[in-house]
Amino acid sequence: MKIAALAGGTGAAKLLRGLARLVDPGDLTVIGNTGDDLRLWGLHISPDLDTVCYALGGVVDVAKGWGRRDETFHALEAMGRFGEPTWFGLGDRDLATHLHRTRLLAEGRTLTEATAAVAAGLGVAQRVLPMSDQPVRTRILGPDGWLDFQEYFVREKAQPAVQAVRYDGAESAAPAPGVVEAILEARAVIVCPSNPITSVRPILAVPGIARALEESRATVLAVSPIVGGEAVSGPAGRLMAACGLPVSAIGVTAAYAPWLDTLAVHEGDAPLAADLEARGVAVLVTDTLMTSPAKETALARRLLEALP
Amino acid sequence: MKIAALAGGTGAAKLLRGLARLVDPGDLTVIGNTGDDLRLWGLHISPDLDTVCYALGGVVDVAKGWGRRDETFHALEAMGRFGEPTWFGLGDRDLATHLHRTRLLAEGRTLTEATAAVAAGLGVAQRVLPMSDQPVRTRILGPDGWLDFQEYFVREKAQPAVQAVRYDGAESAAPAPGVVEAILEARAVIVCPSNPITSVRPILAVPGIARALEESRATVLAVSPIVGGEAVSGPAGRLMAACGLPVSAIGVTAAYAPWLDTLAVHEGDAPLAADLEARGVAVLVTDTLMTSPAKETALARRLLEALP
Repeated sequence: MKIAALAGGTGAAKLLRGLARLVDPGDLTVIGNTGDDLRLWGLHISPDLDTVCYALGGVVDVAKGWGRRDETFHALEAMGRFGEPTWFGLGDRDLATHLHRTRLLAEGRTLTEATAAVAAGLGVAQRVLPMSDQPVRTRILGPDGWLDFQEYFVREKAQPAVQAVRYDGAESAAPAPGVVEAILEARAVIVCPSNPITSVRPILAVPGIARALEESRATVLAVSPIVGGEAVSGPAGRLMAACGLPVSAIGVTAAYAPWLDTLAVHEGDAPLAADLEARGVAVLVTDTLMTSPAKETALARRLLEALP
Repeated sequence: MKIAALAGGTGAAKLLRGLARLVDPGDLTVIGNTGDDLRLWGLHISPDLDTVCYALGGVVDVAKGWGRRDETFHALEAMGRFGEPTWFGLGDRDLATHLHRTRLLAEGRTLTEATAAVAAGLGVAQRVLPMSDQPVRTRILGPDGWLDFQEYFVREKAQPAVQAVRYDGAESAAPAPGVVEAILEARAVIVCPSNPITSVRPILAVPGIARALEESRATVLAVSPIVGGEAVSGPAGRLMAACGLPVSAIGVTAAYAPWLDTLAVHEGDAPLAADLEARGVAVLVTDTLMTSPAKETALARRLLEALP
């Protein structure tokens, strides 16, 4: 049973780890957000793809939800002495990923190829695709002007008030090879519990991907990253509000219309079910808080069982 | 009293550390070999310049004589999993140097500027110059063809029989800004106890540098890296033999004619003094084995005292 998953970072990584325990590796294709990619120290960094690969490769820092476990930061400290920016905390083992990717890109390989090489090196058996081989950059308008996403999220700690969000380069980007095919061929497309505005919408902004979701006969299931009116983690709530969406499962459904079939919401959000169903979305009420490996697997199983 | 020093790596670093304890930082200019530079993992690595900067900056691994102290190798280990070459053992803190340099070069800065930035970041108060801003690559002809110096020295552990040595790019290189001036303005030029074939001759191969040594009114003093018919460290002996030079202070003198004024030789080589003097070189017999910081300083002091 082929499954395609649209994925951001930490929340996605948990659900993907659960799915990986249940689904044949050859049947799972992850389509990862690259709107958060950045260039730092001359390196091409793809934070969401890396979080997914670290999680699926079993080397993620489980407590943080991103980065590599048993990580050290000696290069970072030394970079600080050279006056290089240190607000994006690249670890020593993590650096290898960016060095490898950057070298491959510099030699003319695509981001799809570089991502496959990174995944293979980490022992990831599933297919991990960037949403596009062309750069798409999520930009945030704060009180002092436009920021790259990581500048807003990491450097400014998501503190600036958000006035607008845009996806630079999206209109001229194309889906990476295999992305549209994976969506069209899938039995299910799972939209991971990632930030709708800065993790999922950049993927949807690439021309052709949203249409593939509409055209695909796959059942499209999303897991709401909003529980009880707040994001499980990160600034998803503030970003949704800034984009005029209710900070609730209703807002998530609005962001993913018109191709969403089923939304999984946390038990406390059960009262929203009737409203969601009135919007044409089937509702799966379950425990969506993946606070342990067992709960990651349990949520993945519930999603798979909900397929018609 | 202005001093210019021609420097390779480990041996040079010891003498430079000794000189730095005696000479005003503003009076010491180091002209470093870049014939050993390499590109690895997409990074521009300048091993000799780095060894000098680490030593003068007080962060060198004193036991090894190169690299940074308290170093870790986590990125290296991770790179191996990606199939990247690991024969050149870049440490995590060391990586920062190469990342910083590579970024500056990619932005159009010269190697002179990048070296100054690295030195400043390490707190080096002396001026450290590359011999040239253009690439010069020392190549070694072994039984299986030409090797880059680091391939020969590190990857192949200096085991291949050496048939020839050449300095690719030297004929079209120019001395880096300040190199010729430093030699012409110096009261003394000190040729550090470095490998004559692969550390000093690449510097001399850059058009204009040897002529500056001849034209300069500076006293030129060299410290022989050969003691008792063997190199103090590394493959200098084999390389000298391969280039037709006696593996002795005689061979060192031959390599540095016609601009060498004084050669410092170890006490055990005192019997060679008459032969050396017959070649027009003054001889300074002293303890040249810098096995402690005190002995580094003592040798530096002997050289300075020997100036006319």
